[in-house]
Amino acid sequence: MFNSFKVKSAVRGDYSVHFTEDLKTILAAKAAVPTSLFVIDEKLKLLFSDELKSIIEGERCIFINSDESNKTIDYSQEVIRMMIGLNVRKNDSIVAIGGGITQDIVAFISSILYRGVNWEFFPSTLLAQCDSCIGSKSSINFDQFKNLVGTFCPPSDIYIYSGFLETLTTSEIRSGIGEMLHYFFTEDSKLAAQIGERFDELLENRTLLPYFINNSLRIKKKIIEIDEFDTSTRHIFNYGHTFGHAIEAITDYAIPHGQAICIGMNIANYISLTRGMISTEQFNEMYAILVKNIPPFRIMEKNIEIYCQALARDKKNKGNQLGCILTYGQGKVEKTFLEMDDHFRKTLLDYSIKFSV
Amino acid sequence: MFNSFKVKSAVRGDYSVHFTEDLKTILAAKAAVPTSLFVIDEKLKLLFSDELKSIIEGERCIFINSDESNKTIDYSQEVIRMMIGLNVRKNDSIVAIGGGITQDIVAFISSILYRGVNWEFFPSTLLAQCDSCIGSKSSINFDQFKNLVGTFCPPSDIYIYSGFLETLTTSEIRSGIGEMLHYFFTEDSKLAAQIGERFDELLENRTLLPYFINNSLRIKKKIIEIDEFDTSTRHIFNYGHTFGHAIEAITDYAIPHGQAICIGMNIANYISLTRGMISTEQFNEMYAILVKNIPPFRIMEKNIEIYCQALARDKKNKGNQLGCILTYGQGKVEKTFLEMDDHFRKTLLDYSIKFSV
Repeated sequence: MFNSFKVKSAVRGDYSVHFTEDLKTILAAKAAVPTSLFVIDEKLKLLFSDELKSIIEGERCIFINSDESNKTIDYSQEVIRMMIGLNVRKNDSIVAIGGGITQDIVAFISSILYRGVNWEFFPSTLLAQCDSCIGSKSSINFDQFKNLVGTFCPPSDIYIYSGFLETLTTSEIRSGIGEMLHYFFTEDSKLAAQIGERFDELLENRTLLPYFINNSLRIKKKIIEIDEFDTSTRHIFNYGHTFGHAIEAITDYAIPHGQAICIGMNIANYISLTRGMISTEQFNEMYAILVKNIPPFRIMEKNIEIYCQALARDKKNKGNQLGCILTYGQGKVEKTFLEMDDHFRKTLLDYSIKFSV
Repeated sequence: MFNSFKVKSAVRGDYSVHFTEDLKTILAAKAAVPTSLFVIDEKLKLLFSDELKSIIEGERCIFINSDESNKTIDYSQEVIRMMIGLNVRKNDSIVAIGGGITQDIVAFISSILYRGVNWEFFPSTLLAQCDSCIGSKSSINFDQFKNLVGTFCPPSDIYIYSGFLETLTTSEIRSGIGEMLHYFFTEDSKLAAQIGERFDELLENRTLLPYFINNSLRIKKKIIEIDEFDTSTRHIFNYGHTFGHAIEAITDYAIPHGQAICIGMNIANYISLTRGMISTEQFNEMYAILVKNIPPFRIMEKNIEIYCQALARDKKNKGNQLGCILTYGQGKVEKTFLEMDDHFRKTLLDYSIKFSV
């Protein structure tokens, strides 16, 4: 497996990422520590009953329903109540096992309970393993507003267990690959081309993924160590996300996040092309990779207004200008503000006619 | 008035404490800034209608019910909803005007909304002016558990307005004086003696208070700059608090906080006396000051068990040992762990027979 590495953080000091093929032994060791309190996505209970055995027998264990609709302050309060039932203390360490939603709920609780308790994380989805597990952010929905609330609260230790990947659906793998592509395109690491070449193989043979996960995290690490609180450089990671988030919003999240990001990158690339920032050859080179992971979605006359309204709600906008990341080619992305005028709308429609799947 | 000063903080950088006699002008200037959003304790609306006029006319203003029963995550969510109704944005600055409860609610919201928004604070009670306004802590009740939840999130600017003191009740002034005495006793600053000498005058002439407020904050500043997150040195400020909090708990908060702290310091001093840490003369010198601010409360055979149970719940305990601050004399307090055995109970009963009011 890959070497552990540390991520610098101003919140609670540096934290560590470890790679492992042996979940059972690590969990048994943690279950033997009386200050461990486990919060686990209930979907994993049957799938990994053998690996989780030591924890479940230990009785200091909460199973939660990690549904997007539960990524709320109210559900977080219910989980705190369950923790109190297990006599949670300030010196405990909360061990979270699950995907991004489990991460968000536990990170949020860990940042407010007793003004902060330690937590550790075993990400179980590819998206969480390759991206969200580092970077300190937690995101909680509030009424109809996605991710309105949150904190910066990294875990002390992250364990990337390759075995989780075996049980994921193709859709979950595609979503994670989309997010990894976005990291690879922000840095000219040749890894995007490798993904393009071996795309179908990656969907089938999950043992190939940790190599890309490790590289994805190491690209993210470099930037979040400079700009943990997302006030400057870290904005480059919005590449594909501004256009992608709006697609997720208007399709009611039917398109998996990482795939929406692939459409988003393609749109950003097309706008970059029309502005002369990249050549047709550069566009096509990226398109040949992205298209393998792009699901059907069209921007048309009948939905362009609702799409632009979704874009207009982006946090990174300045007044009426859309704040988004465009590209001068792989490894050279840059924040730009775009007027959302008729020309902008026409560009989106042109894009959709030429490049929608 | 007194000079402004800065407090070092690792959370969001240094923040400033200002003293002012002109609330109206400062608020009018803030009301003219479109990114200001005001959250005000509704009790102040009529008392300071003239000073608040510019804000109320500006319509970017929320009045909240700052009752202890509202110091909850649920009420914080209601306030967030009101803020969304006023189109709150990440770059806004939330201006809180009120006492400690208003502070707790706004600080908590400011630390989670958009993963952090700026806030400023105009403390309106003596307790908030002399103590809680600096130190970064927010505290939120959770079900029956007081201050179980919270964050570290200081305001960017604190404005100590002397005019607020004029409308406070004697009980509120006594409570603030109790908290200030606790700061003065942890540092041999002669200010405790001055309070003892001028006690009745202080209750009547509120213009004398800012001098003590300034000194109280400057003592606190020195320690919180070393230990903002309360993991070591800052523990000295639990002097009087361990014994005081338990008194508040078993009397259902009928005794004002700062006065409970005075009883708590007196108990800590008595235990220090019985352990030979201070002389009778030292005990009496402090007692002569404390007694002016000590309300009736007795530990007796019939309530000692419930009192010890409340002490046993203190966060700073280690197993069965009570973590509390004892004294080697003014300016020389020290953390100690006490066995809560029969001897301990007898000491408390002896104390109560000799020194209860």
